[in-house]
Amino acid sequence: MISSREQVTQMIVAAKVRKGLKWAHVAESIGMSKEWTTAGCLGQMAFDKAQAETLGQLFELSDEAVAWLQIAPYKGSLPTAVPTDPLIYRWYELVNVYGTTIKELIHEEFGDGIMSAIDFSMDIQRQSDPKGDRVNVVLSGKFLPYKSY
Amino acid sequence: MISSREQVTQMIVAAKVRKGLKWAHVAESIGMSKEWTTAGCLGQMAFDKAQAETLGQLFELSDEAVAWLQIAPYKGSLPTAVPTDPLIYRWYELVNVYGTTIKELIHEEFGDGIMSAIDFSMDIQRQSDPKGDRVNVVLSGKFLPYKSY
Amino acid sequence: MISSREQVTQMIVAAKVRKGLKWAHVAESIGMSKEWTTAGCLGQMAFDKAQAETLGQLFELSDEAVAWLQIAPYKGSLPTAVPTDPLIYRWYELVNVYGTTIKELIHEEFGDGIMSAIDFSMDIQRQSDPKGDRVNVVLSGKFLPYKSY
Amino acid sequence: MISSREQVTQMIVAAKVRKGLKWAHVAESIGMSKEWTTAGCLGQMAFDKAQAETLGQLFELSDEAVAWLQIAPYKGSLPTAVPTDPLIYRWYELVNVYGTTIKELIHEEFGDGIMSAIDFSMDIQRQSDPKGDRVNVVLSGKFLPYKSY
Amino acid sequence: MISSREQVTQMIVAAKVRKGLKWAHVAESIGMSKEWTTAGCLGQMAFDKAQAETLGQLFELSDEAVAWLQIAPYKGSLPTAVPTDPLIYRWYELVNVYGTTIKELIHEEFGDGIMSAIDFSMDIQRQSDPKGDRVNVVLSGKFLPYKSY
Amino acid sequence: MISSREQVTQMIVAAKVRKGLKWAHVAESIGMSKEWTTAGCLGQMAFDKAQAETLGQLFELSDEAVAWLQIAPYKGSLPTAVPTDPLIYRWYELVNVYGTTIKELIHEEFGDGIMSAIDFSMDIQRQSDPKGDRVNVVLSGKFLPYKSY
Amino acid sequence: MISSREQVTQMIVAAKVRKGLKWAHVAESIGMSKEWTTAGCLGQMAFDKAQAETLGQLFELSDEAVAWLQIAPYKGSLPTAVPTDPLIYRWYELVNVYGTTIKELIHEEFGDGIMSAIDFSMDIQRQSDPKGDRVNVVLSGKFLPYKSY
Amino acid sequence: MISSREQVTQMIVAAKVRKGLKWAHVAESIGMSKEWTTAGCLGQMAFDKAQAETLGQLFELSDEAVAWLQIAPYKGSLPTAVPTDPLIYRWYELVNVYGTTIKELIHEEFGDGIMSAIDFSMDIQRQSDPKGDRVNVVLSGKFLPYKSY
Amino acid sequence: MISSREQVTQMIVAAKVRKGLKWAHVAESIGMSKEWTTAGCLGQMAFDKAQAETLGQLFELSDEAVAWLQIAPYKGSLPTAVPTDPLIYRWYELVNVYGTTIKELIHEEFGDGIMSAIDFSMDIQRQSDPKGDRVNVVLSGKFLPYKSY
Amino acid sequence: MISSREQVTQMIVAAKVRKGLKWAHVAESIGMSKEWTTAGCLGQMAFDKAQAETLGQLFELSDEAVAWLQIAPYKGSLPTAVPTDPLIYRWYELVNVYGTTIKELIHEEFGDGIMSAIDFSMDIQRQSDPKGDRVNVVLSGKFLPYKSY
Repeated sequence: MISSREQVTQMIVAAKVRKGLKWAHVAESIGMSKEWTTAGCLGQMAFDKAQAETLGQLFELSDEAVAWLQIAPYKGSLPTAVPTDPLIYRWYELVNVYGTTIKELIHEEFGDGIMSAIDFSMDIQRQSDPKGDRVNVVLSGKFLPYKSY
Repeated sequence: MISSREQVTQMIVAAKVRKGLKWAHVAESIGMSKEWTTAGCLGQMAFDKAQAETLGQLFELSDEAVAWLQIAPYKGSLPTAVPTDPLIYRWYELVNVYGTTIKELIHEEFGDGIMSAIDFSMDIQRQSDPKGDRVNVVLSGKFLPYKSY
Repeated sequence: MISSREQVTQMIVAAKVRKGLKWAHVAESIGMSKEWTTAGCLGQMAFDKAQAETLGQLFELSDEAVAWLQIAPYKGSLPTAVPTDPLIYRWYELVNVYGTTIKELIHEEFGDGIMSAIDFSMDIQRQSDPKGDRVNVVLSGKFLPYKSY
Repeated sequence: MISSREQVTQMIVAAKVRKGLKWAHVAESIGMSKEWTTAGCLGQMAFDKAQAETLGQLFELSDEAVAWLQIAPYKGSLPTAVPTDPLIYRWYELVNVYGTTIKELIHEEFGDGIMSAIDFSMDIQRQSDPKGDRVNVVLSGKFLPYKSY
Repeated sequence: MISSREQVTQMIVAAKVRKGLKWAHVAESIGMSKEWTTAGCLGQMAFDKAQAETLGQLFELSDEAVAWLQIAPYKGSLPTAVPTDPLIYRWYELVNVYGTTIKELIHEEFGDGIMSAIDFSMDIQRQSDPKGDRVNVVLSGKFLPYKSY
Repeated sequence: MISSREQVTQMIVAAKVRKGLKWAHVAESIGMSKEWTTAGCLGQMAFDKAQAETLGQLFELSDEAVAWLQIAPYKGSLPTAVPTDPLIYRWYELVNVYGTTIKELIHEEFGDGIMSAIDFSMDIQRQSDPKGDRVNVVLSGKFLPYKSY
Repeated sequence: MISSREQVTQMIVAAKVRKGLKWAHVAESIGMSKEWTTAGCLGQMAFDKAQAETLGQLFELSDEAVAWLQIAPYKGSLPTAVPTDPLIYRWYELVNVYGTTIKELIHEEFGDGIMSAIDFSMDIQRQSDPKGDRVNVVLSGKFLPYKSY
Repeated sequence: MISSREQVTQMIVAAKVRKGLKWAHVAESIGMSKEWTTAGCLGQMAFDKAQAETLGQLFELSDEAVAWLQIAPYKGSLPTAVPTDPLIYRWYELVNVYGTTIKELIHEEFGDGIMSAIDFSMDIQRQSDPKGDRVNVVLSGKFLPYKSY
Repeated sequence: MISSREQVTQMIVAAKVRKGLKWAHVAESIGMSKEWTTAGCLGQMAFDKAQAETLGQLFELSDEAVAWLQIAPYKGSLPTAVPTDPLIYRWYELVNVYGTTIKELIHEEFGDGIMSAIDFSMDIQRQSDPKGDRVNVVLSGKFLPYKSY
Repeated sequence: MISSREQVTQMIVAAKVRKGLKWAHVAESIGMSKEWTTAGCLGQMAFDKAQAETLGQLFELSDEAVAWLQIAPYKGSLPTAVPTDPLIYRWYELVNVYGTTIKELIHEEFGDGIMSAIDFSMDIQRQSDPKGDRVNVVLSGKFLPYKSY
């Protein structure tokens, strides 16, 4: 009996290590970006039927697990409000250190509103650099103005 | 008596509203990016002497306040661990929803380590879009591999 | 020196009690709904110049305070993560008791995505009822589908 | 041995995915609204004997599970005080941003008291809109005045 | 400038100590119970005009403070979620130790629903006892059944 | 292997639902009040040998479980510091809203000290009322004065 | 205007440092133990009239402050739930490491109940020891058995 | 497979109830105090080989469990930062109410430093008293002065 | 099925106790320092293929477990934000007591930036001392200056 | 009126910036290490009379402030349990990532006990390195074995 998406995520993660798969290849198999695909496999996005079935074959999932992949999951991938993992914490730190800066600059350019985290995409790339390669991340989110009424 | 950088931040913020200044112009006045300058004015970065003095004139600060601007501040710009402001929360949400994805993809490309939040820069731009303009953010952080010893 | 919107909110709240004003009348004076106007006066929305000036006269605010009313505020109106006030707690309780229900039903109807809290409006009305009058609240938020990419 | 309602909720959730059921149909089968029915199936409401038995057949539950459905459950459907799921978080955000507004307007209309979350109903509907369909939610709660004594 | 009820509570508390008043006498002066009156003076209830004016004279409050006494306050009288004061903690402990018992017994007698904390009264009395006097507290709250719809 | 009282509580709760028992009858079977008996069955009180054996027969418990019923348990029946269940939350709310009032009135009558939660009893009764029946609760706790030394 | 006992504690603490007083002498002046006296001066106990007046002279307090010393205070002397000060933390650690041990041994000797923290005294002494002097603390609390009813 | 000391503690606790053992007798069997022995059995201290083997026979533990008893455990015996169990909470309350007092008096006698919780012993005894027996606890901890350098 | 590194850590820890291994020997077997090796075995570092296979033989792990050892783990080895174990707490206390000192002195010497916890090594040694042996720890972390841009 | 050491710390911090002092020079003036001196000036250590008076002249403090410097302070220099400042957070991260490693290795070498944070010293030095200078920190703490009794 599968009663939460988290169980399916555990099956996927276990299969990925066991079979030595790469997220980039998983993404190719369903024709989507590696960012969105990985988020989905880690239980944060819902797949359509064809995608779920392809993933089911790749990760050797049961039909019940494939059905769960098509359902909007309860999101949130971190076990604590402040993440303990150093890589993820650095992102939390950016929000903490630059949070008010981001707020000021978006409001200065766009007025009151937010940058959507739903109509949103992310692209992570390696950027070669003689002083040490860099991680380059492009975030793109629609600006949503506060409605006045 | 000024006993914390936070007091200087309040003076700057009050002066900015009172005088109707823009962060973009503040940044120009010291010849740095608007992202780094705003973070500094909001108490997250240290300025050099010339920068601090220029800002002192712009915001009509006392000499004591100008001295504080040159000192590495106690960082962290948010009043709560989980931010309540919707614009900043969306960023926290991104870390929560995409945190494990970012971790997986950086490790897949670079191995164990982190993306630096110190040797780091950020660029926020408006991207025109007929379906509604978008906020485009480029983050660039040096990859730091975990040292084994 | 005014260094946060919260100070302006306190001035407004103090003036409202001192002068015996009603939110409904405040809303009329700027031609907006009572819900949006009250949220703005309590420091959650930004007003345009004309609105801010009208409010400035109504609440006898300084020019500096009027300037602050036109700036996108740091939002969040509650002093604790779980509200202690019984009226507001009942709403928190609704989110707690009905949260997963709301999630299931919106996903069943619309697929994966959210109901916007930005492109959003609220209308609160008294509904007469012989068994005791009821509070009727209509919430309207744009559905935003998760972007896949 | 079933020792909590939560175990029954997991059985229902698992069966729903496995059998591809819709909450709207589940609600029809017991002749109640989809909001109340879903809340009940997710462990927040108690069913009467006939309802519980119908649900037992629909979800293929044991007699013990059907008995549990008739017992007032320990309520609260969220794993954290501040919800991490974006759809549910938006509701928490509404309480945070509009909480004091709701308080002010209900008190202005009704005096001191609360809007009941017990003598309460909710109706969620799709509202077509050329700019993007909207989620329309009507909340109706009895006003309960504070008793003075 | 008074911008919160809490400031008025502090004035009342200071005056009470300074003038050596008793809550029982304060309650008599406005013809209400000592429980409700004390709760109101401590910022948890709203008074009507006559009551507020009587209290204003008793505690030598300004007109502005008297106006605040007539407004429904933001409730919650404790500085921490788990109270540190031993007398109040014992009550928290009762909820912790007996909470599920109270729930079971009210549901056994009344079905699903709650005991109101709004349509509610409390009476605290000394009960003589040769083994040491006892505090006797009678709580009376209307039972509110969960509405099914 | 039973290694905590909580496991016994789960056995009792499961048996109670399975066998359709009432707490009032359970209490009768051991000749104690329904409040104390329920608290004990829910893991908050220790039973003597005869009581434990009677309960063992009623709930069909093993000898090991019956032995555990006679041991002073680790008390606290709620999963979170602030309870999410609405019925129990109302009691938490009473402590929050009336906490300082209770403190003031007990001190006014008895001086510095507390109302015991150990030398304590509770009685929950239905009180008929044409406007809706009420839950009547009588709490009786010995006053314990702070010792000065 | 003094509106809380904490203000009086600050006056006492400031006077003690300014005048170079010792707690042992303060205790002598009112004829009580140094433990109880210090706790009282730090805002945790109520003094009688004579004691308060003696302390008023010693610490040069106003009449209003002396009145506050005679009122049962809101207790709890630590700024955080887990104390940060190393000396006090060690005591918290004892509760954490030995808490279940203390519980087991008191129950083994006395049955279910508690050791009172109200009918309680404490005595702190230096114990000479060639390997380094020791702090000796004797705690004495009345055993209170749980009442069954 | 045993992967934490906690599992061994559960085995010990289960065996103790099953076999009706007393901590005092367990302590005698290894020739140590009942306080230190109980703490060790509850997973807070490490035993030497002979002690562990004696306990292994007493509680019928496997060799693997006996090996775990000889390893310094991850300490901390309470499930929450603020304990919910009333007996243990009273000790937490003592730290809260008397924490600053203990700090003041130890510093007054010894200067800056702490009372060790490592070079520490505890003795719990019943003290007969006609007004109700008392729990007497003697704590002895080495004073450790802060090193200046 | 292994779905997290934590499961592998439990296997290693269980094997280490069962087989009576020492961390120093484990480290020798893979030719790395005892500090880095122990951190890796406790789930905080990723091993290369050869190291993982050696560890697999030493701890008798399955191939699946060996595969997991080569994957960058979700880091963070403590169950609570403030550690309860006294040995680890002392380190948390050092950060609490000396945190601002470390910050001041590094900034005084190096300017704004951090000491890396990634390009970092640690060496723990016993230092003989007639007054009691000491633990000597050398931490070495690269200084990373904040980038201005 | 000075009622806490924190006020003196603020005076020192303000004077240090105003007068452009260095911690290294402050330490020289009292003949102690820069680490201990800085910790003391930031409110974590007590100074003797001569040291306090020298500091009083250096920072132009009042006699009352100088008296406070000689009193053992309430320690803990961070505003939140998990530090937000990146430099200090890295140290918290070390405790989180390496905490269990440190525990294992100290126990392996010394047996059960702790590394003292009281009989403790710290030395922070710059270490030149062509790949970027490093921060070298030596921590030395006495090992304290758990007493068995």
